[in-house]
Amino acid sequence: MSKLERLVQRLERLKSNNLYQSDFYWTWDKTGDELDAIFTVADALRDLRERNLSTRVFDSGLGISIFRDNSTRTRFSFASACNLLGLEVSDLDEKTSQIAHGETVRETANMVSFMADVIGIRDDMFIEEGHKYQKTFMDALDEGYERGILEQRPTLVNLQCDVDHPTQAMADLLHVIHTFGGVENLRGKKVAMTWAYSPSYGKPLSVPQGVIGLFTRFGMDVTLAHPEGYEVMGDIEDLARKNAQASGGSYRKVHSMAEAFQDADIVYPKSWAPFKAMERRTQLYRAGDKAGIDALEQELLAQNAQHKDWTCSEEMMKRTRDGKALYLHCLPADITGVSCEAGEVDGSVFDRYMEPLYKQASFKPYIIAAMIFMSKVRDPAAALRALERRGAPRKAF
Amino acid sequence: MSKLERLVQRLERLKSNNLYQSDFYWTWDKTGDELDAIFTVADALRDLRERNLSTRVFDSGLGISIFRDNSTRTRFSFASACNLLGLEVSDLDEKTSQIAHGETVRETANMVSFMADVIGIRDDMFIEEGHKYQKTFMDALDEGYERGILEQRPTLVNLQCDVDHPTQAMADLLHVIHTFGGVENLRGKKVAMTWAYSPSYGKPLSVPQGVIGLFTRFGMDVTLAHPEGYEVMGDIEDLARKNAQASGGSYRKVHSMAEAFQDADIVYPKSWAPFKAMERRTQLYRAGDKAGIDALEQELLAQNAQHKDWTCSEEMMKRTRDGKALYLHCLPADITGVSCEAGEVDGSVFDRYMEPLYKQASFKPYIIAAMIFMSKVRDPAAALRALERRGAPRKAF
Amino acid sequence: MSKLERLVQRLERLKSNNLYQSDFYWTWDKTGDELDAIFTVADALRDLRERNLSTRVFDSGLGISIFRDNSTRTRFSFASACNLLGLEVSDLDEKTSQIAHGETVRETANMVSFMADVIGIRDDMFIEEGHKYQKTFMDALDEGYERGILEQRPTLVNLQCDVDHPTQAMADLLHVIHTFGGVENLRGKKVAMTWAYSPSYGKPLSVPQGVIGLFTRFGMDVTLAHPEGYEVMGDIEDLARKNAQASGGSYRKVHSMAEAFQDADIVYPKSWAPFKAMERRTQLYRAGDKAGIDALEQELLAQNAQHKDWTCSEEMMKRTRDGKALYLHCLPADITGVSCEAGEVDGSVFDRYMEPLYKQASFKPYIIAAMIFMSKVRDPAAALRALERRGAPRKAF
Repeated sequence: MSKLERLVQRLERLKSNNLYQSDFYWTWDKTGDELDAIFTVADALRDLRERNLSTRVFDSGLGISIFRDNSTRTRFSFASACNLLGLEVSDLDEKTSQIAHGETVRETANMVSFMADVIGIRDDMFIEEGHKYQKTFMDALDEGYERGILEQRPTLVNLQCDVDHPTQAMADLLHVIHTFGGVENLRGKKVAMTWAYSPSYGKPLSVPQGVIGLFTRFGMDVTLAHPEGYEVMGDIEDLARKNAQASGGSYRKVHSMAEAFQDADIVYPKSWAPFKAMERRTQLYRAGDKAGIDALEQELLAQNAQHKDWTCSEEMMKRTRDGKALYLHCLPADITGVSCEAGEVDGSVFDRYMEPLYKQASFKPYIIAAMIFMSKVRDPAAALRALERRGAPRKAF
Repeated sequence: MSKLERLVQRLERLKSNNLYQSDFYWTWDKTGDELDAIFTVADALRDLRERNLSTRVFDSGLGISIFRDNSTRTRFSFASACNLLGLEVSDLDEKTSQIAHGETVRETANMVSFMADVIGIRDDMFIEEGHKYQKTFMDALDEGYERGILEQRPTLVNLQCDVDHPTQAMADLLHVIHTFGGVENLRGKKVAMTWAYSPSYGKPLSVPQGVIGLFTRFGMDVTLAHPEGYEVMGDIEDLARKNAQASGGSYRKVHSMAEAFQDADIVYPKSWAPFKAMERRTQLYRAGDKAGIDALEQELLAQNAQHKDWTCSEEMMKRTRDGKALYLHCLPADITGVSCEAGEVDGSVFDRYMEPLYKQASFKPYIIAAMIFMSKVRDPAAALRALERRGAPRKAF
Repeated sequence: MSKLERLVQRLERLKSNNLYQSDFYWTWDKTGDELDAIFTVADALRDLRERNLSTRVFDSGLGISIFRDNSTRTRFSFASACNLLGLEVSDLDEKTSQIAHGETVRETANMVSFMADVIGIRDDMFIEEGHKYQKTFMDALDEGYERGILEQRPTLVNLQCDVDHPTQAMADLLHVIHTFGGVENLRGKKVAMTWAYSPSYGKPLSVPQGVIGLFTRFGMDVTLAHPEGYEVMGDIEDLARKNAQASGGSYRKVHSMAEAFQDADIVYPKSWAPFKAMERRTQLYRAGDKAGIDALEQELLAQNAQHKDWTCSEEMMKRTRDGKALYLHCLPADITGVSCEAGEVDGSVFDRYMEPLYKQASFKPYIIAAMIFMSKVRDPAAALRALERRGAPRKAF
C-alpha cells in the first residue's frame, strides 16, 4: 500500500467532519480525532509534494494575512501553505491602510473578504486583545456570509494570539510524532516546557500555553517549569491538568529547571513574560501611559536578569534521558555567545540540534495547509485520492 | 434560460466593441451601452463565481497597482479582481522604489509594464495632479507599445483620481440597479448627493463628482447639496446638467441638506473639501509652503465645524421617500458616536443600513474585473459562454 | 523552420548541462556555451510569450525576493520572470521581519525556503558584504537540502551584489546581440565602459564590473575609462584582461572619456564610486562612525564635482563610430537639464536613444526567467518544444 493510501485510510477512520467550514482558534476546541486528521493530512500533502504532484485545490482565491506583530517564519509558512493550495496571499498591512483612521474591525473584515477563502491572523502583542480581535473579525464574517454579502465564508487560521499558537504547537508535535515514530509512541514520554532566560522582554505566552494545552492530550507527562512570578494563564493550566487526566498522562508545575529536565525525553526551554505583567502592560497601553510602559520594561528586564541560570546549558541537557532529549524551540532562539551574551541556550547545544530544529519548523507550512484543506474540502479523503489520480505535476519539466 | 445566458444575450445587444483595448479614466468617456456592458459583465462574472466556475482568462500576467494614497477597500478590490481573472498583483510602492530619486513617470511606466496586463492607479490627493499622472503614465505605455518595447498594451483602471472615482460610482450604481430591480427602473428616481460634516479634512471630491457625472445618465433626478463654499469642479457640474438633459432626468444644486433629502429615493451624504481650497492646497504643496498648508488645514477644519448640522440624522432620513431612502456611502463613514463625536451619519442610521452598505461595496471587485475583461477580451459574449462551457471549478473539491 | 525550432536547435548544440541545479552568482562562473544557452532560452521564452503561449513550468511554488537596497526595475523584472514561469513572489522585507532582531542568515535562509524554487537577492550596498551574504544564504540552503529539511534546493539569481550585476549585464548584452544581428557579429566591436559625472554619490561598482567581466568574452575591444581615483576592483580588471586574451578581443584602461569614445560602437557612460572609498565606507559602517560616513560623503561629492566634464554630451557622441554608437544605460540615468543640472548624459542624447534604452531594459525579465528555466528544467530543449506543442494560451480569449 502506498504511503498516501495508508494516510488516507487513517484519515477515513477518524471522525473529523466537524472541521469542515470551521475556524481554527485553539487546539483545545478540537477533538483528538480532528487534530489527528490535521496531522495526517499534513503528512499526505507533504507526500504529494515530495512526489512532485500538484496539490492545488483553488483555481483562484485569496488568502488574507494580517500580522499585527512582526514575523518572518509564520509569514512565509502562511504564504507557502496558501500557494500550495492555489491561493494568492494578500497582506492587510495596517500601516498602509485606512484602519488606523477609525475603520472598525467589523467593516474591514467584510471589505477585504469578498474573494477570500482564508484569513490568517497573528495578534499576540496584548493580553486580552489578540483572541478578541480574531473573534470579532470572524463573527463579522459570519454575519456577512449569512446576509449574502460574502459568497463564501473564509476560514480562520490563528497564526498566534495571546492565548494559543496552534500552528506552532501542532508543527512542534508533528515533529515529535515523526521523531518518536508515531502518535501511538507518545504515551509516557516526559516533556519539559520550561522558561529560559532572555535579554529581551515581553515574549508571548502563547507558545508555552499552546504546548501545555496540546501535549497533555497524548498521554505524555508534561512539566511546566518557571521561576516564581512567571505564571502563565491559570485557565490554560487548568485545561492542561484536565487534558492530562483524560489522556492518561500527567501535568505538574515546578519552579526548577533542573527538576523539569530530569529524565525528560523532550525539552522546550523558552523565554516568556509573566502573565500578570502582560495584563498590566495592556492596561498601560490602553491608558497611553508611556512612562508606565517604559518603567514596566525596566522592571521586567531586571526581573529576567535574576534568572540567568535558567538556560539550556550542556550541564542541563545531561540531566535528560541519556543526555539526549529532543530539544525544541519555535525559533529564533537567544543563543548564548551567538545572538547574545547570555540567553536561552548554549551555542553548542543549539548547534547540535540545528537539523532537528529546522525540521521542526518545516512542518508549519503543511500544518497550515492541512487546516485550510480540512476546513474547505468537503470530502478530504476522496480529494487526496483525486489529487494523486489527477497526477498533475507541480513542476512540469 | 439560465441567468448567465440572459446576461450574455443582453451584452450582445449592446454596442460595446470600443471598450476593447481601451483605458478607463472617467465614466463620461464611455457610452451608455458601454457602461451597461460593464454592469452586465460584472453580474455575469459574479454569477459564474457563485456557481464555483473559474473565470480565469490569464494563465500568467501582472496587474500593477499604484496607490499614491492609502487604501484598504480599493486595494483589496483590485487584488480580488486581478486574482479572479488570473493576474498576479505587483504593487509599485513609491516609498520602496527609486521613483522618488528623479525617475520620470514615463520611464517607470515602461519599466514596470513588460509583463503587465492591467495598471490600477489611485492618485486623488492633489487637484490637477491625479488625472495628469494617469494620463502621462498611459501615454508612455502607448508609445512603448507602438515602438515594440511592450508586447502588450496594459489597460488602465482608474482607481480614483482628482476628477472621477469610476470603480466606486459604478459599484454604487450597480448596487442601486440591483436594489431597484433593473437599470430600466431608475428613471425618475430622486437622488440626493449631499455634503456632510466630518471632523477630518480634505476628503476627495472624486466621489461626489463621480456620482453626479454618472447617475445623471439614467434619467434620475439628481440633486447636489452642499453649504456655500463647498463647490465641486464646475466642469463636472456642467457635465451633469448636460447628462440629465440628454437622459430625460434632471440636475440641480441646492444649499440645504433638508431640501435635497425631501422625498429622495437615494441619499449619499458624504464629506468633501471645497474645490477652490484643494486648488490652493496643490499650489502650497508645489511651493513647499509648509506653514501655508498647516494654516489652510486649520481654516478648513474651522469652516467644516460651522456645518455640523449637515449630518444624516434620523430626522433627516424621515424626510426621504417613506423615510426609507436607500442610504449610500463609499465607506469608511464618520459615524456620530462611533468613530467620532459628530460626523456624517447617526450611528442608528448607519447600523440600519449596514447590510446594504456592505453589499454596495461587494460590487467593486466585479466592476473592476468587468472593466479588465471588456478591455482585454476580444469577444466577451463568446468568452463568457466558453467559461461556462469549460466548467473548470474555482474550488476543485 | 520556426523561430522557436531554430532557437531550440541552437540550444541543443550548446553544452549547458551544468546550469541544471546551479546558482547564478557571476557571469564568469559560467562557460561561453552556458551564457549563450541563457541568451537563447531568453529569446525562446520571449517568442512563446509573443505568440500568446503559456510558459508556465510551475503549478505552485515561491520565488523569494530579498532587496537590501531599493529597486523598481529589478524588482519588477524578477516578479515578471517568476510569474511567467508560474511562481508567486514573496518578498522578504527585513524592515518587517525578525532578521534585524539577531536572527542569523543561515536560519532565515532555511525558514523562508520550504517551498521556494528561486531566491533573488540584491545586496550591493557594501563592498565585501553583498556577495558574502548571498554565499552564506545559499550555503545554508545546500546544507538544508542535503539534510532533508528542504524538499527542493532553491536556485539563486544574483539580482546585484557588490561584485557583479549579471542580470543587468546579460540583458545589456542580449540587447547588443539583437542590435548587431547576432552574437557572431560582436567580434571587433569597440565598447567604451566609462565613468560619468553624477551629482549623487556612491553608485554601485557592479555595473561597470559586470560589463567589463562579460563583454570581454565575445571578442570585443573593451575600454574602461574613468578619472584617476575611480578604480574598480583590481580582480575584475585582471579577469577582463584574461577574458579578452582568451576571446581574441582586447581590454585596456584609459583616463579620458574622449579617448574611450573614439570610434566606439557601443558606449556605456555611467557614474560609480571609487572602490577604495567604498571599502572605507564599509569600514565606517561597521564601526558605526556616523561622522566619518558623512565626511566621506562630502569628500566624494567634492571629488565627483571635479569631473563634470565626464558627461555623454553631443560633442562626445560625435567621436563615436559615425557619431552613432549604441548608447547603453542601466537606468535611471542622471540626465542634464532633466533630472539634474549636470549629469551623466545630455538630454538630447538620452531622448534620441530612449527607444533602444527601453528595449535594453525589456530583456531583463527574460534573462532572469531563462536563468531560472536552465537551473530548474532537466531537459530545456525538450521542455521548450513541449511548451509549444502544449499550446496553452497565456490569455485565453
